[in-house]
Amino acid sequence: MSDPTYKKIELTGTSEESIEAAVNNAIVKASESVRKIRWFEVKEVRGSVAEGKVHQWQVTIKVGFRLED
Amino acid sequence: MSDPTYKKIELTGTSEESIEAAVNNAIVKASESVRKIRWFEVKEVRGSVAEGKVHQWQVTIKVGFRLED
Amino acid sequence: MSDPTYKKIELTGTSEESIEAAVNNAIVKASESVRKIRWFEVKEVRGSVAEGKVHQWQVTIKVGFRLED
Amino acid sequence: MSDPTYKKIELTGTSEESIEAAVNNAIVKASESVRKIRWFEVKEVRGSVAEGKVHQWQVTIKVGFRLED
Amino acid sequence: MSDPTYKKIELTGTSEESIEAAVNNAIVKASESVRKIRWFEVKEVRGSVAEGKVHQWQVTIKVGFRLED
Amino acid sequence: MSDPTYKKIELTGTSEESIEAAVNNAIVKASESVRKIRWFEVKEVRGSVAEGKVHQWQVTIKVGFRLED
Amino acid sequence: MSDPTYKKIELTGTSEESIEAAVNNAIVKASESVRKIRWFEVKEVRGSVAEGKVHQWQVTIKVGFRLED
Amino acid sequence: MSDPTYKKIELTGTSEESIEAAVNNAIVKASESVRKIRWFEVKEVRGSVAEGKVHQWQVTIKVGFRLED
Amino acid sequence: MSDPTYKKIELTGTSEESIEAAVNNAIVKASESVRKIRWFEVKEVRGSVAEGKVHQWQVTIKVGFRLED
Amino acid sequence: MSDPTYKKIELTGTSEESIEAAVNNAIVKASESVRKIRWFEVKEVRGSVAEGKVHQWQVTIKVGFRLED
Amino acid sequence: MSDPTYKKIELTGTSEESIEAAVNNAIVKASESVRKIRWFEVKEVRGSVAEGKVHQWQVTIKVGFRLED
Amino acid sequence: MSDPTYKKIELTGTSEESIEAAVNNAIVKASESVRKIRWFEVKEVRGSVAEGKVHQWQVTIKVGFRLED
Repeated sequence: MSDPTYKKIELTGTSEESIEAAVNNAIVKASESVRKIRWFEVKEVRGSVAEGKVHQWQVTIKVGFRLED
Repeated sequence: MSDPTYKKIELTGTSEESIEAAVNNAIVKASESVRKIRWFEVKEVRGSVAEGKVHQWQVTIKVGFRLED
Repeated sequence: MSDPTYKKIELTGTSEESIEAAVNNAIVKASESVRKIRWFEVKEVRGSVAEGKVHQWQVTIKVGFRLED
Repeated sequence: MSDPTYKKIELTGTSEESIEAAVNNAIVKASESVRKIRWFEVKEVRGSVAEGKVHQWQVTIKVGFRLED
Repeated sequence: MSDPTYKKIELTGTSEESIEAAVNNAIVKASESVRKIRWFEVKEVRGSVAEGKVHQWQVTIKVGFRLED
Repeated sequence: MSDPTYKKIELTGTSEESIEAAVNNAIVKASESVRKIRWFEVKEVRGSVAEGKVHQWQVTIKVGFRLED
Repeated sequence: MSDPTYKKIELTGTSEESIEAAVNNAIVKASESVRKIRWFEVKEVRGSVAEGKVHQWQVTIKVGFRLED
Repeated sequence: MSDPTYKKIELTGTSEESIEAAVNNAIVKASESVRKIRWFEVKEVRGSVAEGKVHQWQVTIKVGFRLED
Repeated sequence: MSDPTYKKIELTGTSEESIEAAVNNAIVKASESVRKIRWFEVKEVRGSVAEGKVHQWQVTIKVGFRLED
Repeated sequence: MSDPTYKKIELTGTSEESIEAAVNNAIVKASESVRKIRWFEVKEVRGSVAEGKVHQWQVTIKVGFRLED
Repeated sequence: MSDPTYKKIELTGTSEESIEAAVNNAIVKASESVRKIRWFEVKEVRGSVAEGKVHQWQVTIKVGFRLED
Repeated sequence: MSDPTYKKIELTGTSEESIEAAVNNAIVKASESVRKIRWFEVKEVRGSVAEGKVHQWQVTIKVGFRLED
């Protein structure tokens, strides 16, 4: 069977800088243990507040990667 | 990189007693193999029926835990 | 044709005790007129308030049962 | 104009015991400052985990009350 | 009763710079009148267009804060 | 900071006449205590039944208004 | 058991006049065979077009009624 | 009153062959007891697995039919 | 190939009178440039407020029309 | 600017044979007037019924294509 | 504790033939590493287009399997 | 008839830099062929991954513009 199958896992990345950095942090982390990551989908953006401003961005994504044949 | 990343997995816990017990059963089971579980989110509540009443509660949750650095 | 077909009906059960009791009340009631109920799915949980606390749980479920051949 | 208008506010109640207790705690708290609460709708059930089991139920509800004429 | 209750309010922050700035503007504004803000959830991102490019980011968030005991 | 922030509140207006009247009743009521209402979004339309026909329209809306600088 | 149970059925009412009339037509029709209808919820509004304008409103509602003890 | 009213019922059809066959099986079954079925809407596709492959398709549909005048 | 294909476009119609008029205005406008419009689906109802009451209804619809063979 | 932009249009394809054929019919039709179609997303599956079985599959898809630079 | 717990994973299966084949391909692939798969739920159907027709079906499913005691 | 009608089209903008840049790229592109663009709504944020980090942001938006009288 040569039709590829992909798996999607759900991660929450965090950053004190930006939404983009939180997403990238999660993907960098996932790449330590998963190969062939191809795409991500942002599912939720939330965060914590401290001293009356945004303290941390928490971005939940799904990450898709190809399963090895 | 010190910004933590979390992973979320999806489980369906069951119980003949209550919704709360079904959730707790799933978390106890997950704790056998995953450390640092922090939170859960209830996604679906359903169940089976036998002899005209509720037989088993089936509660699907997402469980979030911190990935090791 | 031997592939079974199921019908789903929507009920709102009520109870002054708990969510579980409201679900069970609806299933017991449905069992008076429908046979072969197999499963339920919780669709909405709401309720009424009296004297500053929860008075009645109102839980809407879908109930699935097999149609007779 | 005699047609009543209702306002809905969103609260997250907590409890270490049950979903029902978390809802009731939020309604009791809201009743300290709002009169004529009539109904609630459960919007989200989540919670925290400690030592491998459920530690706290966190239930978000909308609470509806009648605005004074 | 010592279980905390949280209230969530819905705000739309705006900025000509970025999504992050629009969120932060709303939280800074809310902090003028609400204490103990703990978290936010992004619900909608939209904006206005002028002269063929983005003019203003309009980001709707829910902001959660603890009610005083 | 001159970027405006808006707040959205949720109301259920009622009318025995029409959906439009129920929405307008809620906005007129809100205008008694809130200034600078700019827009509304219809979230739910429901109602009560009496004597086999519609008795009352109940329309839930979100109302957006600008927070004072 | 004295806790009431309600059943919800789904109907699509039609009218060439208005959304309200389409809803009311469905409720009047349902009242021919169902007693104790208490409430309705609008689920979808659509319609047909003829000669470049709205020809018929088609409004899908859920209708709730109390099951006899 | 000549504006037609339609009723929608929810069924889950099954088949070991295909999604289309599962839908058709449900409609054929419904036609045994309901006349004037006009349309269907697919709401959910799921199924059971046996011996490492799809065993049965379970397709939930809503079926609309005209109520008799 | 004789199986018809339909295209759906999304429009926001406006009216100071009613939801129905806003929908109809959008369909009349679309009919200036598109032939064979068959149906519409209401997707969102919102509006602007002026002087403490509804000023303009803004109704977003999808409009379906048959593509020419 | 060399970052590509894509447009998505919404089509309803039909077939008396299968869901797949309905999708393919819509894409073949779209390809008559749009170049560089890259992907599609299935949004809704419904159909008409005649003589107690499925008569026509109606599948609504979004079709994405690259805009010319 | 004898109440079973299930885990759900998310996969995207692909096929140039049909939706059913794409689902089955994902399940066959998952069965290489997971035992006791019991059910699946279709979450999304999309695909790629080449030369003006469907080239590949991409079907995202959730797959449920029982965790070992 | 002087009530304005708006059309909404769906675009996916891309950028290797940020979500904001992807949105802006789509709007700049749309402005080449459409006049009177007034607003946009973000519908989906996803992207591709290369070498273990985010490679391209893909942001789907709806763009609203006024139809000419």
